[in-house]
Amino acid sequence: MTFDLTGFLGYSAGFCTTAAFLPQVIRSVRTRSTKDISLFMLVLFATGLILWTIYGICEDRLPIVAANGITLVFVGVLFWLRIRYGSSEKAS
Amino acid sequence: MTFDLTGFLGYSAGFCTTAAFLPQVIRSVRTRSTKDISLFMLVLFATGLILWTIYGICEDRLPIVAANGITLVFVGVLFWLRIRYGSSEKAS
Repeated sequence: MTFDLTGFLGYSAGFCTTAAFLPQVIRSVRTRSTKDISLFMLVLFATGLILWTIYGICEDRLPIVAANGITLVFVGVLFWLRIRYGSSEKAS
Repeated sequence: MTFDLTGFLGYSAGFCTTAAFLPQVIRSVRTRSTKDISLFMLVLFATGLILWTIYGICEDRLPIVAANGITLVFVGVLFWLRIRYGSSEKAS
């Protein structure tokens, strides 16, 4: 019972932290405005996701590989949008 | 040797994905502009972090609790900034 609960918690947690980037991608694509998003954040986060994916491969943990791999795709798209739409606008 | 490598990978990965939110917080505080950040992303990500933290407590894994707890503080600050500075500006 305890095992089921923690397993459910882990998968729910992974689903949330992975799926969270989808509304961000949708917003960025729709508004074509990404200047408020830190480029350094995206680079550092993507680096972490790549390391988590390698860790998952080394440890043979498919859920870690899958969750981080999917998140990496979303963050990659955000990185591309951030580069494309730049930060030319100056925030007040 | 392999154990050390994967351990190092895991800690490096956790450091990157946690530390990544610091430059985002700094940028948002400095520019006072957060309209490009999806509120739904922050809510969903924070939910995931809370679930990861509970998972870490249940599994008695301090690194998971620490990494997700610290990230949760950063995301909490971003959420507050996002509410405070709102999304009144309309992106072109």
